[in-house]
Amino acid sequence: MNTEKLISEIHKKQSFLCVGLDVDLQKIPAFLLKEEDPIFEFNKAIIEATHPFTVAYKPNLAFYEAHGIKGWQALKKTIHYLNKNHPEMFTIADAKRGDIGNTSQMYAKAFFNDLGFDSITVAPYMGKDSVEPFLAFKEKHTILLALTSNEGAYDFQTKKAGDKALYKKVLEISKQWKNSQNLMYVVGATKAEYFKEIRQIVPDSFLLVPGVGAQGGSLKAVCKYGLTKNIGLLINSSRGIIYASKEKDFAKAAAEEAEKLQLQMKTILNGTNRPA
Amino acid sequence: MNTEKLISEIHKKQSFLCVGLDVDLQKIPAFLLKEEDPIFEFNKAIIEATHPFTVAYKPNLAFYEAHGIKGWQALKKTIHYLNKNHPEMFTIADAKRGDIGNTSQMYAKAFFNDLGFDSITVAPYMGKDSVEPFLAFKEKHTILLALTSNEGAYDFQTKKAGDKALYKKVLEISKQWKNSQNLMYVVGATKAEYFKEIRQIVPDSFLLVPGVGAQGGSLKAVCKYGLTKNIGLLINSSRGIIYASKEKDFAKAAAEEAEKLQLQMKTILNGTNRPA
Repeated sequence: MNTEKLISEIHKKQSFLCVGLDVDLQKIPAFLLKEEDPIFEFNKAIIEATHPFTVAYKPNLAFYEAHGIKGWQALKKTIHYLNKNHPEMFTIADAKRGDIGNTSQMYAKAFFNDLGFDSITVAPYMGKDSVEPFLAFKEKHTILLALTSNEGAYDFQTKKAGDKALYKKVLEISKQWKNSQNLMYVVGATKAEYFKEIRQIVPDSFLLVPGVGAQGGSLKAVCKYGLTKNIGLLINSSRGIIYASKEKDFAKAAAEEAEKLQLQMKTILNGTNRPA
Repeated sequence: MNTEKLISEIHKKQSFLCVGLDVDLQKIPAFLLKEEDPIFEFNKAIIEATHPFTVAYKPNLAFYEAHGIKGWQALKKTIHYLNKNHPEMFTIADAKRGDIGNTSQMYAKAFFNDLGFDSITVAPYMGKDSVEPFLAFKEKHTILLALTSNEGAYDFQTKKAGDKALYKKVLEISKQWKNSQNLMYVVGATKAEYFKEIRQIVPDSFLLVPGVGAQGGSLKAVCKYGLTKNIGLLINSSRGIIYASKEKDFAKAAAEEAEKLQLQMKTILNGTNRPA
């Protein structure tokens, strides 16, 4: 999916919400465990209930790999289901991969071509030649970790690297890489005060923002500085939506939580304060 | 496997070689492609031929994920084969994972408990709470990326972070994390001149060293500063060993290459220059 299509979907749905499909068998309704593929059945129900309010879905790979081959089957079925039934959705493989060149190329092929994701999250530590193989794919997006939502972000990311913090260096340097138009960045909502400076470095890039809700970040604070004239934000919520209820009504409860966020987004998109 | 056992195996075999099982279907002998599981058949043959000369095996996950479910099956069969038939081998999941706490925990469980690897490579960018869930596993090892063997290492890793290079900060700070006795580090052989300073920060830690051979690093140069009284080095070679021949004799050719390195290691281990 190209960026124009994503922006047009956001306008159409009045939402820049991404639902994180981080499926934990201990947290989903118990009655689903009787199904042959509980993870996929859960995802299907969540997708069917929430798709009117969201423009993106993001399975975190760890939750699938934790179940080995069965997990991979559930992931494959989920992405195929999305691509077949909801081709307008932007799909994100939250894999946080990154390796030397020829190896990154194998990851890129696996996630973009074989599985059919629109994008993948990638760690920047190994630098340019570990990321460019992902960037080489047309109409696919590489979402580079910049400033993450966890405490550990302060260990290295916010430490001064030369004249500025490492995460700023990651933004600055990666902009110079080949096909950098295919870059997006992960920036945690828990660090809303950083968005102003981030927008000075990457004024137009899409930012994938985890940490709204369960991790404590505020949607309004993020939008105040993060929103651009082409939106430029995908706000992810996982636990707050998909685990809204553990009962028979889990999908309905998820939809209600997703709609709450969508309505807030609609208000922000139509607000007088947003960039023209 | 605990570190003492690894060291004792190194002494017994007079080798600190690790064979990288980075299986690319385009590079393995064509006749194997007729097998039901060519990746596993290739690995089995390589393991049977090379095990007298090596103490560790390291499958890089990208090469398995590239084949989806089939790849995961081949990986599972390979690690089970190793644990059953060669339990003395130190096994490394070269996965370069790392995510927020609860997610890292899922990865750790998947690789350590479910698959049964002795160790996993982890990226440091997300800091302490992304790594500590791996460190919590007893007699399992977390191999943190410090200074990698690729060109991109110069993008961020060698950049000054405060008073010293980022990779040195990674070494220094990670030493303070809980259960840091379970840490090892990735340091590329292509940067042999850095080993002296690295040993000042982590005098005793095991270093996993890729980049000998195909990537141009020299074994002697690495050992000069990297070797400790408890060895402290695992030298990885992948392509130089496993793709030594594309013919029927591929396993024999791999064994010959592994033995060449093992003999060099034996000489070094018995040399007069090594630390007492």
